[in-house]
Amino acid sequence: MTPVQVSGRAERLLASLDERGLDQMIVSDRSNIRWLTGFSGSAGVLIVSARGHVLISDGRYTDQAQDQLEMSGAADVAVVTARTAAERNNAVSVSTSGRPLGAEALVMPHSEWSSLSAHAELVATDGLLSQLRRRKDESEIGLITTAADIATAAMSEVAPMLVAGVSEREIRDELEYRMRRLGADGPSYETIVASGPTNAALPHARPTSRQLVEGDTVVIDVGALVAGYHSDMTRTFVVGEPSDEQQRWYDLVFASQAEGLDAVIEGARVSDIDRACRAVFEDAGLADLFVHGTGHGVGLDIHEEPFLGSSGDAELVAGDVVTVEPGLYRVGTGGIRIEDLVVVTSDGHRNLTAYPKDNPCPPSPQMT
Amino acid sequence: MTPVQVSGRAERLLASLDERGLDQMIVSDRSNIRWLTGFSGSAGVLIVSARGHVLISDGRYTDQAQDQLEMSGAADVAVVTARTAAERNNAVSVSTSGRPLGAEALVMPHSEWSSLSAHAELVATDGLLSQLRRRKDESEIGLITTAADIATAAMSEVAPMLVAGVSEREIRDELEYRMRRLGADGPSYETIVASGPTNAALPHARPTSRQLVEGDTVVIDVGALVAGYHSDMTRTFVVGEPSDEQQRWYDLVFASQAEGLDAVIEGARVSDIDRACRAVFEDAGLADLFVHGTGHGVGLDIHEEPFLGSSGDAELVAGDVVTVEPGLYRVGTGGIRIEDLVVVTSDGHRNLTAYPKDNPCPPSPQMT
Repeated sequence: MTPVQVSGRAERLLASLDERGLDQMIVSDRSNIRWLTGFSGSAGVLIVSARGHVLISDGRYTDQAQDQLEMSGAADVAVVTARTAAERNNAVSVSTSGRPLGAEALVMPHSEWSSLSAHAELVATDGLLSQLRRRKDESEIGLITTAADIATAAMSEVAPMLVAGVSEREIRDELEYRMRRLGADGPSYETIVASGPTNAALPHARPTSRQLVEGDTVVIDVGALVAGYHSDMTRTFVVGEPSDEQQRWYDLVFASQAEGLDAVIEGARVSDIDRACRAVFEDAGLADLFVHGTGHGVGLDIHEEPFLGSSGDAELVAGDVVTVEPGLYRVGTGGIRIEDLVVVTSDGHRNLTAYPKDNPCPPSPQMT
Repeated sequence: MTPVQVSGRAERLLASLDERGLDQMIVSDRSNIRWLTGFSGSAGVLIVSARGHVLISDGRYTDQAQDQLEMSGAADVAVVTARTAAERNNAVSVSTSGRPLGAEALVMPHSEWSSLSAHAELVATDGLLSQLRRRKDESEIGLITTAADIATAAMSEVAPMLVAGVSEREIRDELEYRMRRLGADGPSYETIVASGPTNAALPHARPTSRQLVEGDTVVIDVGALVAGYHSDMTRTFVVGEPSDEQQRWYDLVFASQAEGLDAVIEGARVSDIDRACRAVFEDAGLADLFVHGTGHGVGLDIHEEPFLGSSGDAELVAGDVVTVEPGLYRVGTGGIRIEDLVVVTSDGHRNLTAYPKDNPCPPSPQMT
C-alpha cells in the first residue's frame, strides 16, 4: 500500500495563511500534522513556514518520523527532537524568528499557548486546515473505500448471527474482530449496536449485555480504520418480521435518505441536504423523531468538515466525503437509521457503501 | 457491579483548593470529571464549588449524567445542559459569580480559557486532582484487579498460538477479542506485540504483519479496560529455545524487576525504584540498553501519577497503583521486558499480575 503523498499541501496552507497576512503556522492537531506530513505519532508539533518546515517531536518518534516523512513525499520537512517543553519552545523560537505565527486556539492547551507567546505573537487560525482537508485526492478516497469495504464484509459475516439470544456486546465484539482480521487497523469509532424498544431509540447508545428478542429493531453503526482513514455506515435490522409501523418507518427513512443523496452534488448547500431528508419526515408528521444532524465529513477524523445540518451556507465541493444518515427514534418502537458514505462529484456523488439497504436488513442478506 | 462511590472526593478537592486561596475550580479533564462524579461522557465541564457543584454537559448526555451521578453517590451535583459555547460560558458565569476559578491550563484549549476569562479570573491548578487520584480505594483496586485478571486470562488463551508463522497482528487481534469476551470494555491501550530482532527492540512498536520465526523474542504488552479502570502487563516469550544471550538477558530483567518490586513500599522515593532496577543492568554493563522509564501510575488513565524515573523526589503513598517494567533492547537480539502492576502498601506491595514470569514465557504456560 503506497502511503498517501502529501506534496503540495504545505504550500496550499501557506497560500491560505498569506491571505491572512501570515507566512507561518504551528500545527498541533494530530490529523492536521498527518495530512501535511504523513507523520502519525501521538506527540509533536509542526511548523509550516515559507522559510522551511520543521517537525518537532520527542525522542520516541524521531526514527518513525523520518521514515513516514520520506514515504509520504515530505522529505523537505526537517525533524527536530525536543525532550521537554522548554526544548520545544526553544525549537519553535529558532524556527519562527519571533514573527507572527498562526496557531490552533481550539486545540492548543492554554499553558502551551501561554508559554509560546513569550517567543512569538500567536494568531488563531483555526479552520484553515479543516477546509483544505475537505478535497480528498484519489489515494485518500482509495483508503476510505478500502475501509468501507472492510466494514461491509464484516457486516456480511456477522449479519447471520443477528438472532434472538445474542447480546449487543457479542455483536460488537464479532464486528470489530472481523474488521481487524479483514485488514483494518481497528474500528474507526466505538461501534454502536443498539437493539429493542429502548436502546435502539438512543442514537448514540453504547452496546450492552442486552440480548436480542423477536421484534427488535437493531441499529448497527460501524466503520473501519485503514492507514488513518475512517469509514462510517449504519444499517438497521429487524429480528423476525417487522411490525407494520417498523416497516413504515423503514420505508420513510429509506425515502428520506434517497432524497438526501439525490441532493448531494458539488455546489449544493449543506443545509439543502438536511432539508431534503427532513422534508420526508415532515410530510409524514414524524419530523420530531429525527433528533440529530443529517451528516458530516469523514477522512482522517471520523467527524470533520463539512457538517450537514439545518443551518449553514457552506457549499459542497468535489472531493468532500460525507455521510447521509437520517433516522427515526421513539422509545417503544425502537430506532431506524440508514447511513451511507459518499464522495461528492461535479455531477452528483459516488456511493462508497456496498452493503444492501433496500429493506430492513434480514439476518442473511443476499449480497449484490 | 456497584459503581465506584465518589462521596467525599469533591470535598477533598475543595480542601486542596483552599490551600491555594481558592474555593472553586472548573474541571475539564475527562478522567478527573469521572473520578469526581462517576460521569463518563465525552463532553462536559464540572464546576466544583463550596457553593454547590454543577456538571455542564450538552444535550446528548443529560440522562446519562443524571443516572451515573446518582449511582456514584454524587446526586448533590446539579446537571445543567448547554448546547453551545456561549451557553456553557453563561452557565459557568452564573455558577461561579465572577470569583477566581481554578482551571486546568494543561488541558483546557486556549480558545476556551480565553473566552471564560471574560467571566472569571482563571488560575492554573494543574496537578491537584492527579495527586488526589493516586490513593485508590478498595473498589477502584477491585476494578483494576478484574482488568488485570482478564488480561492474564486472555494471555493464557493466546500463549499456545505463539508459534512460527503467526503474525504480530493476529496475536494482537486474538488478545483484544478474548479480553472483550472475558468482560473487558476493550483494551486499555494499543496492545503491543513486538517480535524478532528489529521489532522487539523497539519498546513502543506497533503490531505488524511480521510472522514469528524460531528464535524470536516476542514482547507482549497488554491490558484490559473495566468500568474506566486500566490494567497493564508485559510478558516476553521466546519462540523455540532461547539463545544463551536471550536467557542471560531474561534472567537480568527478571532480577532487575525483582529488585524494583522489593523497593516498592509506602514512603519510598520514586527514583529509588528506578535506581534499584537500573543497578542490575549497570552491574552487567548493559545500562545503556534500558531506554525508558521504570514505571508509572495506572488508574482512570493508563499513564498517571506517580511516574517512576531517575529523577523526582515524590514518595509512594499507600494506594498508589504502579507498574514496574524494566527491559533490555538491542537490534539483533530483540527485546525483553517484564511488567507487573502492584498496589503500594504500608509494608511493601501487593502484586495484581497473576501471569507467570519466572522464565521466558513458554507457549503453553502452566498457570499457578
